[in-house]
Amino acid sequence: MKKLDEVIDELCDPRNYEVVHHSQTRHVPMPSTEVLGEIVERLRAVLFPGYYGYSDVDAENMRSHLGANLDKVDRLLREQIRRGHCFSCSLESEGEADCLDCEELSRSLSRKFIARLPEVRRLLTTDVMAAYEGDPAAKSPGEAIFCYPSIHAVTNYRLAHELYHLGVDLIPRIITEMAHSKTGIDIHPGAEIGERFFIDHGTGVVIGETCIIGRNVRLYQGVTLGAKSFPKDDSGKLIKGIPRHPIVEDGAIIYSGATILGRVTIGAGSVIGGNVWLLKDVPPGTRVIQKPAGGAEGENALLLESLK
Amino acid sequence: MKKLDEVIDELCDPRNYEVVHHSQTRHVPMPSTEVLGEIVERLRAVLFPGYYGYSDVDAENMRSHLGANLDKVDRLLREQIRRGHCFSCSLESEGEADCLDCEELSRSLSRKFIARLPEVRRLLTTDVMAAYEGDPAAKSPGEAIFCYPSIHAVTNYRLAHELYHLGVDLIPRIITEMAHSKTGIDIHPGAEIGERFFIDHGTGVVIGETCIIGRNVRLYQGVTLGAKSFPKDDSGKLIKGIPRHPIVEDGAIIYSGATILGRVTIGAGSVIGGNVWLLKDVPPGTRVIQKPAGGAEGENALLLESLK
Amino acid sequence: MKKLDEVIDELCDPRNYEVVHHSQTRHVPMPSTEVLGEIVERLRAVLFPGYYGYSDVDAENMRSHLGANLDKVDRLLREQIRRGHCFSCSLESEGEADCLDCEELSRSLSRKFIARLPEVRRLLTTDVMAAYEGDPAAKSPGEAIFCYPSIHAVTNYRLAHELYHLGVDLIPRIITEMAHSKTGIDIHPGAEIGERFFIDHGTGVVIGETCIIGRNVRLYQGVTLGAKSFPKDDSGKLIKGIPRHPIVEDGAIIYSGATILGRVTIGAGSVIGGNVWLLKDVPPGTRVIQKPAGGAEGENALLLESLK
Amino acid sequence: MKKLDEVIDELCDPRNYEVVHHSQTRHVPMPSTEVLGEIVERLRAVLFPGYYGYSDVDAENMRSHLGANLDKVDRLLREQIRRGHCFSCSLESEGEADCLDCEELSRSLSRKFIARLPEVRRLLTTDVMAAYEGDPAAKSPGEAIFCYPSIHAVTNYRLAHELYHLGVDLIPRIITEMAHSKTGIDIHPGAEIGERFFIDHGTGVVIGETCIIGRNVRLYQGVTLGAKSFPKDDSGKLIKGIPRHPIVEDGAIIYSGATILGRVTIGAGSVIGGNVWLLKDVPPGTRVIQKPAGGAEGENALLLESLK
Amino acid sequence: MKKLDEVIDELCDPRNYEVVHHSQTRHVPMPSTEVLGEIVERLRAVLFPGYYGYSDVDAENMRSHLGANLDKVDRLLREQIRRGHCFSCSLESEGEADCLDCEELSRSLSRKFIARLPEVRRLLTTDVMAAYEGDPAAKSPGEAIFCYPSIHAVTNYRLAHELYHLGVDLIPRIITEMAHSKTGIDIHPGAEIGERFFIDHGTGVVIGETCIIGRNVRLYQGVTLGAKSFPKDDSGKLIKGIPRHPIVEDGAIIYSGATILGRVTIGAGSVIGGNVWLLKDVPPGTRVIQKPAGGAEGENALLLESLK
Amino acid sequence: MKKLDEVIDELCDPRNYEVVHHSQTRHVPMPSTEVLGEIVERLRAVLFPGYYGYSDVDAENMRSHLGANLDKVDRLLREQIRRGHCFSCSLESEGEADCLDCEELSRSLSRKFIARLPEVRRLLTTDVMAAYEGDPAAKSPGEAIFCYPSIHAVTNYRLAHELYHLGVDLIPRIITEMAHSKTGIDIHPGAEIGERFFIDHGTGVVIGETCIIGRNVRLYQGVTLGAKSFPKDDSGKLIKGIPRHPIVEDGAIIYSGATILGRVTIGAGSVIGGNVWLLKDVPPGTRVIQKPAGGAEGENALLLESLK
Repeated sequence: MKKLDEVIDELCDPRNYEVVHHSQTRHVPMPSTEVLGEIVERLRAVLFPGYYGYSDVDAENMRSHLGANLDKVDRLLREQIRRGHCFSCSLESEGEADCLDCEELSRSLSRKFIARLPEVRRLLTTDVMAAYEGDPAAKSPGEAIFCYPSIHAVTNYRLAHELYHLGVDLIPRIITEMAHSKTGIDIHPGAEIGERFFIDHGTGVVIGETCIIGRNVRLYQGVTLGAKSFPKDDSGKLIKGIPRHPIVEDGAIIYSGATILGRVTIGAGSVIGGNVWLLKDVPPGTRVIQKPAGGAEGENALLLESLK
Repeated sequence: MKKLDEVIDELCDPRNYEVVHHSQTRHVPMPSTEVLGEIVERLRAVLFPGYYGYSDVDAENMRSHLGANLDKVDRLLREQIRRGHCFSCSLESEGEADCLDCEELSRSLSRKFIARLPEVRRLLTTDVMAAYEGDPAAKSPGEAIFCYPSIHAVTNYRLAHELYHLGVDLIPRIITEMAHSKTGIDIHPGAEIGERFFIDHGTGVVIGETCIIGRNVRLYQGVTLGAKSFPKDDSGKLIKGIPRHPIVEDGAIIYSGATILGRVTIGAGSVIGGNVWLLKDVPPGTRVIQKPAGGAEGENALLLESLK
Repeated sequence: MKKLDEVIDELCDPRNYEVVHHSQTRHVPMPSTEVLGEIVERLRAVLFPGYYGYSDVDAENMRSHLGANLDKVDRLLREQIRRGHCFSCSLESEGEADCLDCEELSRSLSRKFIARLPEVRRLLTTDVMAAYEGDPAAKSPGEAIFCYPSIHAVTNYRLAHELYHLGVDLIPRIITEMAHSKTGIDIHPGAEIGERFFIDHGTGVVIGETCIIGRNVRLYQGVTLGAKSFPKDDSGKLIKGIPRHPIVEDGAIIYSGATILGRVTIGAGSVIGGNVWLLKDVPPGTRVIQKPAGGAEGENALLLESLK
Repeated sequence: MKKLDEVIDELCDPRNYEVVHHSQTRHVPMPSTEVLGEIVERLRAVLFPGYYGYSDVDAENMRSHLGANLDKVDRLLREQIRRGHCFSCSLESEGEADCLDCEELSRSLSRKFIARLPEVRRLLTTDVMAAYEGDPAAKSPGEAIFCYPSIHAVTNYRLAHELYHLGVDLIPRIITEMAHSKTGIDIHPGAEIGERFFIDHGTGVVIGETCIIGRNVRLYQGVTLGAKSFPKDDSGKLIKGIPRHPIVEDGAIIYSGATILGRVTIGAGSVIGGNVWLLKDVPPGTRVIQKPAGGAEGENALLLESLK
Repeated sequence: MKKLDEVIDELCDPRNYEVVHHSQTRHVPMPSTEVLGEIVERLRAVLFPGYYGYSDVDAENMRSHLGANLDKVDRLLREQIRRGHCFSCSLESEGEADCLDCEELSRSLSRKFIARLPEVRRLLTTDVMAAYEGDPAAKSPGEAIFCYPSIHAVTNYRLAHELYHLGVDLIPRIITEMAHSKTGIDIHPGAEIGERFFIDHGTGVVIGETCIIGRNVRLYQGVTLGAKSFPKDDSGKLIKGIPRHPIVEDGAIIYSGATILGRVTIGAGSVIGGNVWLLKDVPPGTRVIQKPAGGAEGENALLLESLK
Repeated sequence: MKKLDEVIDELCDPRNYEVVHHSQTRHVPMPSTEVLGEIVERLRAVLFPGYYGYSDVDAENMRSHLGANLDKVDRLLREQIRRGHCFSCSLESEGEADCLDCEELSRSLSRKFIARLPEVRRLLTTDVMAAYEGDPAAKSPGEAIFCYPSIHAVTNYRLAHELYHLGVDLIPRIITEMAHSKTGIDIHPGAEIGERFFIDHGTGVVIGETCIIGRNVRLYQGVTLGAKSFPKDDSGKLIKGIPRHPIVEDGAIIYSGATILGRVTIGAGSVIGGNVWLLKDVPPGTRVIQKPAGGAEGENALLLESLK
């Protein structure tokens, strides 16, 4: 049997670790998923005071708690942004980058992000109301805030989306991936999603990077809003940044397991039935279901056979 | 750029936080997901002694460990029930509620719940046997207890279901949501599920609030037992509590990705094929598959095309 | 109402706990999921130095950190293997087993497993490159290592697979189940998977025990590679170990929600469309999509109806 | 050998546990040393911002951090005061106490305590300056704040003293005992100590309940300011609350190991030599040393003998 | 400057680490101070129910909590005893020891120890009463249990003393050293101490291995009951186990800083004054104080000098 | 009663916090006592392999574990040194300091410190042997390493002393203060202490900054080696760095409670009796005890009086 020392030798051979080793640029480590987790939990406490974090927040002490929380978020986030930047930077530059600029940039990005929080909260408030009003099981908006995977995932998304817009590297993706792991809902931080957005149950939902979703849209579990294909350039490389995911207009509803691929438009107020596989535009106000093959409307073609 | 102070001002403006702020009733905080997690883990140790919690439980010391665990569960649960009640209460009442009554009620509910644990264990024992006997990969019932997401999720469900029946607020939902997050299996605590229940793999399964599932039923990943539509009253509000999810009779099997919606009945011993989309009753002993469109039985209509 | 003492009596009645109680063999407890979690995290740090674990690993200090980590993995793993073995052993033997042999065996298995790590890393390096090259959103291989659920789940799988091959009991299943819980990707440790394997998004993917997957294969979320039925022997018991899951040859792509069941072969370079339900062989270089029923190619049979 | 069950029987026999069992009054537990530890650490962060707790406190964010910290201290302390009160209460009353009054009282006491913090800080500032100016090894006041056991113990004392004055039960004693455990300095919360107080090294110092210590006093390790005897009443019971410890006037210095017992007065500016045992008043401006018995001044009577 | 590698080489040179390296016997590690800490805390909860550990212990649930605690103590202690034994064993034997015997022995010792707990509690009850009755500041026996360093240290001592008597290696010393670190009271587990024992303040107290202390004895801080000299055998080695520390008879009181050395007897009811240095027997009923040299009785010879 | 807001106002008034606020220089926080604690524990594991830290260290894996530990110590220590430096720096400079120089300096100091570890271990080995050989209760050198407060405190001292010699700010003091808190032994990092040093029991020992202690010296609890007075310069300020503490030559023994003050020399092989108060030189080979006043040799002047 190989000895431990031989195994270590192999694993420490640069040819074996070349691709999978992260060599720090200027001793700046990778962003910390643990700290990012703390940041997001602090932000959840800021956005939904009393539901998360310190529970006894009232009008009197809110300024202190919120202020202390935001100040800490600011310091922590700034450092994580810098790490994310440094990680990306090390991929491109030859070590000539001016790190002090990065420091300044991170500071500024963190503040710009924080300035967006009131608007993020406004949007989430509409999401909460949509969840509450759209689910017969919900007894109060508070229940939706506290228990619903949709609110959890959409909160992470809306925060990550702001960072994405500011051009922050790596961090937004980690933040939505955290929610993906917890809820099974995978929303790319680049997607644009309007207010009053709700996903019921949610497991298996995928929303791609260039999706544009209007106001008052509702999805069910297992819905995919994906890309149809990835165009490549002449040299065979994937072309990045091209709009390649669906546009879903205001008020559309998409039932469980439906798959919509490519830059198609689902018109306002349309309803897409469950398990539908859709690759083309749908005009506003249309209901799309699987074609019945002799069965009831909305069913797929079924064969029934007695087992007896 | 906006200053931090201005952001805090906006976030502390009551108009911005109105909906998303939880103002405690009598300084009773929200139920604690952390404590509820501890309660469920303690109950898992009670239900499956030696597999969870203290590992060296034998006939001699079982009474002590089980007793100590149950006593702690009782104290912790009683407090969480009260919090959940207080949360709901604050939504309805005008502060006139008699909190001492709540205290007494919580105490009584906790005890009633605990009195149901032997029956919960009996049911789970049948679920374990079903998992073991139904999966060619399982080598022992113990392996199912220790490793299978189905047992994990169904344990949470069976506990939450007892609390649901006792009229406990909020807590049952949080308990099933914990399992949903961990396993991708989303069972509403209101569903009725008979013994010997097994879900293989499980990710993406949704079982709605008014489902009734018989004995010896097996589901696969991605199965939805959902509602077809939500009836509204004259004023446009959702009507709550109406039976709106399927009835699945004894011995039925539902393969992966099948979607069954509405108050339909899947007859005893029926088999529903994968990806089937079903909106109507199925008689007992029926096999339902997607209708072959020139393909083999059980396949959906496929188009094959050479890429060469 | 039943008294607490009565409940305890019922729960401590051997008839109630018979199946669900784990009585230790020679006071050897169950494997610890916590320790197994630590082992896997240490291995992740070994496999992807600088990305996980201690972040400041360079050529100079790598031997020390890697060596210390491996040495600890060895001691921890050896103990867990022994526990897993003891658990299985207690199911079969009558207490005559020679535990010192188990001790020796565990030690040897742990070392054999560690000897495979360079090869595991080589394979994972190809998986990382496949993820990076196949996803237009990825900016560097490092991003894939750090953020992608596919790499997380495949790492756990590749580690568990080595243990599975060595005949280690219970542990491999726990390790893949950890990844299943976190990513929604359920790969059985017994499956054989070639290099450059990538799963996009991943939630809901199921890969069965006897699957054989070639090189350069790509899956999307919700794909099932499952068994069609479980043959039973004359006495009605499931026959274990029979090849019952698909073979997917080199370069095949399977889109989201597709279900492939039974010992069928998907030929090299084939493309299986989304939501396809497939129960038979597909020749190499074939595109399989749902048959259009008057709709565009690749769509399923749809019914469009105006809601206006 | 006795069986475990018999041991448990004995230990659960009320005659065995009568004195040592704390039976809760109305299910209010004992004060939590853990929470009191948190309270004191939060107060240390309030009193010495930037040295303890959150390190990046500046003029801009101080209000938020300090406010959030104080608000939490208030909620935590109020509960601990109530517990301490309840503990004492259960000793005296027959269960007729009005707990709502206690609740109100605790709230009020906590606020009164907090109102004293600026004065506590003012006093501690003088203590810090005394430590810095009195120790040739100290390079800055900050070093004294951060490293000196005297500052640690005196901070706990000054906080506990305020609570003692407010009539809070049990808590003050626990707070000084924490510092005693950490530093070996045992100051009773009832002692009165003026500003600019410094104890060098400190291990073994004891300062009794009715001590009165002036301004600018310095002690060394092992100094005892104790009681000479405990007067008893006619029935042989100790009489409580009688002044029985020394008065040490402004500017006095007491060197290591000196013991001063009873209600004596050490006059202003006096210097008490090491190891001195003193039971009577000392006029202001007096130096007290052990009488030389043929040795040098300040030495005790020594016998020197060659060992060769 | 030396390179890191050279330093590691030196530190890994057996000549450098010979004495200070613990090479495990049969891979049995050192006793764990962490686990011993847990054991002692669990025992504190057993001995003083409601004061330590789970706070809501009443007559109804005491058996469960106490039983569960004792069972865990038993399992943990047994392992620690074996480790301590193995550590000592490795010093003496040549690897021929029969480890299974050790296993059996540890099990038996742990049970014998537990059988002594009711008596340990009986003794501690008298200590608690002595503390309460002897200190004018104490308001209840409960305060003494909860806050007094004496009770903390004497509890550890009484537990360690039982283990010492059973011949357990190493563990007793670690347990008293824990209390020494926390309270500054250093009691050797070999000392014999009667009931109603109380130490006020306690810092600096030392009680040697062969001390015999009667009933109702009280000590103050800084008291040493030590050895005068260590007799050596002909070869110059220290002779172990000879009685070499004082005997203190019933009812004696020893004030702060007194030092009593050698196998002398302090007669019943005697009072030893502070700072007294004593090397010979004292008859019963004697008061011993420093001889006044012209000063008041009980003072040492003092020189007073005006500083003005 | 003052409102919370008013209290906050007062506490945030710069006049109230001027002295006690640490305003960071360039956002470099105070050294972290937590991290310094980790550093010292890692070093303890390096110095005494198998006793502390990872317990299963043998000749084979020692290099890896030791190397990994030292590498982490290096990174952590370097940062703490920089913080300590920055703290001191901010006291002196006007913000013109070149922080990159500090970074480089810290790196170099950390490496120089690590290069001294083999010598530190050599010295500690002699201390361990002295403890073992000098204490009749010790059964092995290992017991001394694992249980004796002297070894704990002297380890911290020897590490801190090396840092002190390198001119590191603040850190050495914190490291010895940690041991002071745990053991009651207060050794200034500036003291010079030769090999084979042992302190029995230790509580209350104080060893001042300019002490010089030879080889093979033994102290008992409560010994002070202190300064007699602090000379001031013309302006009344303490003059720092003057030799002001005793010199104790090889082989001297100082018994419990003895106090030696000022720059006096205790000659080689001398024995200083307990409680002696000494201010002048003692020739080599001298025994110094308290002069008997009619009592036995070595006793102090005592008055015996019958209490009967």
